[in-house]
Amino acid sequence: MNTVPSLTPPVEALTEVSQQAFRDAMAKMAAAVNIITTDGPAGKAGFAATAVCSVTDSPASLLICLNRTASVFETVIANGVVSVNVLSSDHQALSSLFGGKTPVDERFAAANWHVGATGAPMLSDAMVSFDCVIAETQDIGTHRILFCSVKAIEERDAAGALLYFRRGYHHLPA
Amino acid sequence: MNTVPSLTPPVEALTEVSQQAFRDAMAKMAAAVNIITTDGPAGKAGFAATAVCSVTDSPASLLICLNRTASVFETVIANGVVSVNVLSSDHQALSSLFGGKTPVDERFAAANWHVGATGAPMLSDAMVSFDCVIAETQDIGTHRILFCSVKAIEERDAAGALLYFRRGYHHLPA
Repeated sequence: MNTVPSLTPPVEALTEVSQQAFRDAMAKMAAAVNIITTDGPAGKAGFAATAVCSVTDSPASLLICLNRTASVFETVIANGVVSVNVLSSDHQALSSLFGGKTPVDERFAAANWHVGATGAPMLSDAMVSFDCVIAETQDIGTHRILFCSVKAIEERDAAGALLYFRRGYHHLPA
Repeated sequence: MNTVPSLTPPVEALTEVSQQAFRDAMAKMAAAVNIITTDGPAGKAGFAATAVCSVTDSPASLLICLNRTASVFETVIANGVVSVNVLSSDHQALSSLFGGKTPVDERFAAANWHVGATGAPMLSDAMVSFDCVIAETQDIGTHRILFCSVKAIEERDAAGALLYFRRGYHHLPA
């Protein structure tokens, strides 16, 4: 943790914006859709997420923001490994399945997977898959940030990108 | 910082992927384009970035991944405030200007700005602008993650979203 300079009183006195205002505004920040999976001693799990971000290429690292009350949370943390599968425009139905309440076995039965080097399931036709070990974490409010070290990458030709923008799916050509 | 479960030796023994392989793969994760600005005792600065991510709505927070060797780094950290301006499809030339080597005054002269509550310049026709205070930071490899508390939001009707995908700009209709 680094020190942050102290701010002048007027800035410290600013109030937070409401949850709803923040959600509505963030809906305007378009993002790629990913299915994040894990497997290991705590079992298999997977979920759809847009809150994924590149961190650094030295060492190759990305981050995932995960709600600590999410049903998959304890499984992901206990296993310590994740696969981040960037979805193509062919994967909209799969994304909906992994974003809903469908039981884990039914989710995985809807696509083809293989086991990555970390043990996490890799989506066999993802546009790109990052096989990762969770290296560090930090809690911010309701969420835990997972800083993930990328151990293997798989890339494939794909139709185009699946995006989420203004609370709906969009397709971006390759 | 939370504890991370110890991993079995085979996983720990995995090597990192190369910088180039990571960059090539990350180019396939489409992202919204933002101009991030700051102003304060250390002066004015601004840069284009895709490494921005929603964190939590309680309290409203987002994160920015910033290279510690970036020319704007010391200014951003010293001021402790940033504005994240999500670009519309009308802003492609502005994004290129803020992603290049153009002097700071020329960058800001190319668009209309007003001063946010934190003192950071807000792009007057951004699709949405988040006026933020840097609340916490964490260093990962070459980068510093800025966890930002959102103090004000401005939204506007916009033509559509500006995206970066496969090392080029793309437009997503509203």
